[in-house]
Amino acid sequence: MSTHQTDTGTRTRTDTGAAAPAPAALFTAERSAEIVTDSFARTLDPRLREILGSLVHHLHAFAKDVDLTVDEWAAGIRFLTETGHTCDDTRQEFIMLSDVLGLSMLVETLAHPADGQYTESTVEGPFHMVDSPPRALGDTIDEAAAGGEACLVTGRITDAEGTPVAGAHVDVWQADADGYYDVQRPGEVPDRNLRGLFTADDDGRFWFRTIVPRHYPIPTDGPVGGLLRATGRHSFRAAHIHVEVTSPATRTLTTHLFVADSPYLDSDAVFGVKESLVRDFAEVDDPDRAAAHGLPNPFRHVDFPVTVQRDG
Amino acid sequence: MSTHQTDTGTRTRTDTGAAAPAPAALFTAERSAEIVTDSFARTLDPRLREILGSLVHHLHAFAKDVDLTVDEWAAGIRFLTETGHTCDDTRQEFIMLSDVLGLSMLVETLAHPADGQYTESTVEGPFHMVDSPPRALGDTIDEAAAGGEACLVTGRITDAEGTPVAGAHVDVWQADADGYYDVQRPGEVPDRNLRGLFTADDDGRFWFRTIVPRHYPIPTDGPVGGLLRATGRHSFRAAHIHVEVTSPATRTLTTHLFVADSPYLDSDAVFGVKESLVRDFAEVDDPDRAAAHGLPNPFRHVDFPVTVQRDG
Repeated sequence: MSTHQTDTGTRTRTDTGAAAPAPAALFTAERSAEIVTDSFARTLDPRLREILGSLVHHLHAFAKDVDLTVDEWAAGIRFLTETGHTCDDTRQEFIMLSDVLGLSMLVETLAHPADGQYTESTVEGPFHMVDSPPRALGDTIDEAAAGGEACLVTGRITDAEGTPVAGAHVDVWQADADGYYDVQRPGEVPDRNLRGLFTADDDGRFWFRTIVPRHYPIPTDGPVGGLLRATGRHSFRAAHIHVEVTSPATRTLTTHLFVADSPYLDSDAVFGVKESLVRDFAEVDDPDRAAAHGLPNPFRHVDFPVTVQRDG
Repeated sequence: MSTHQTDTGTRTRTDTGAAAPAPAALFTAERSAEIVTDSFARTLDPRLREILGSLVHHLHAFAKDVDLTVDEWAAGIRFLTETGHTCDDTRQEFIMLSDVLGLSMLVETLAHPADGQYTESTVEGPFHMVDSPPRALGDTIDEAAAGGEACLVTGRITDAEGTPVAGAHVDVWQADADGYYDVQRPGEVPDRNLRGLFTADDDGRFWFRTIVPRHYPIPTDGPVGGLLRATGRHSFRAAHIHVEVTSPATRTLTTHLFVADSPYLDSDAVFGVKESLVRDFAEVDDPDRAAAHGLPNPFRHVDFPVTVQRDG
């Protein structure tokens, strides 16, 4: 099978140390992005080819801009490997990395630019890992009842014309009063605590009971925590309830409801805060209303009118 | 602890649906890279701050250039997670990813630009995961003796002035005749087969016996293999022996010795080929010389003169 030149003498060609003829395409730092992009020329999916071309262009430009050293590259490989090893069924360290680098928020904002007409979106975050349990309107999502201020959340789903989106699904999830999601405390709290999937009524309305969420740190015991410490950044997210609204007739909305008196609204660790999503959770002193909802008096209340975009 | 405004009426402020006052810094797609870079302003290490600023700039520019969708972002998160989960003690999928994107080769080339004076470098690759066993000059690294053409490798380590680097360490490793490294066949071949750590003699010379390496595919059973398939790229590396030269007085050289008659020299899967590193492995028909080296006759021979850079 070999095609090399046979040399029957005792001194072979290679003993001169001469290099063999050049291959057709050679790597150079100057043309590196072009050479690698060319290697993707046979990609059948044009969108994948476009994405990879841009990715390679920016990745190589980054390495050249900072003159990335081999040791720094190796540190990056270790960081990515540890990030991967930190991911499991209840922990998504790569989403957290994307979050603290602002990429998640950027992608979400590119998909849903603010236009003043529809409720703004924000990041989904790494904790929507299990399906929320279906619950009846008015139910509580706080099965643990381990503390926190009782709260009533109300809202109405409409389209841009104000027409209610009857039967829309409203998926909510939030951290507990200690700042942990259920998946971070397996065995300590009921499964799927502080999660609920509600179905809006014929008028597009939804309401449920919960506790006022508190600000909390994102998990810092992994590589992303190390990154935050190395860069002098805190790990706190402003207090929020996740809200995802879906219906067959409308575009999915992924957003948060932020608590107006929460710290860290102006330095949220994942850049998730948008002005229009910050709402007062006002105290209500009304024994009759409290009793009607099965809440202690006084309680806190937030109303979240949601405007979603109809498909087509 | 709460600072929210108390509302004692039955109709609270929030019932109007009015948004609370704006936080100080808000995320926008236009200013996204600047906002995130600002969050790293308290990074103590100026180099880390520089690298992260450039990384964020290019990462966000990439997402904007291609208008990355949420689904595409999610596919990227899954890809990175699977890549991390594929990494273990004997498999480094992130290095392979860096390799097939040309990043490894770029970083190596930035660190060691070709100047015609020193032996060129190339990627280390993902298989330098275990220490090579120290061996005596002239020994074979082929402990398995499971096939392949017998080969003599000779060389001499000098500096730019031609002065030998006595006692330099020459670390070599290569795939077997089937295209596998030892760590890919645990239990099937001796540990550290086809690896060797040699010490150059007082004249800077080294020599050892091995088999002619063959071209081989990089592992394609992980996410990187999926990427290559999706982009119509083959997975082959041109045949090579890894060579790493270290000594207290010189800069480390990480390179390959490529076989001139190997296929894939012009389309190496990791872009590792440089013209000056391609050498003839010429056939030698010389019974006396074969006997002197403990080789069958005929055998193949490659000479690899190496010029390294003195420190300081």
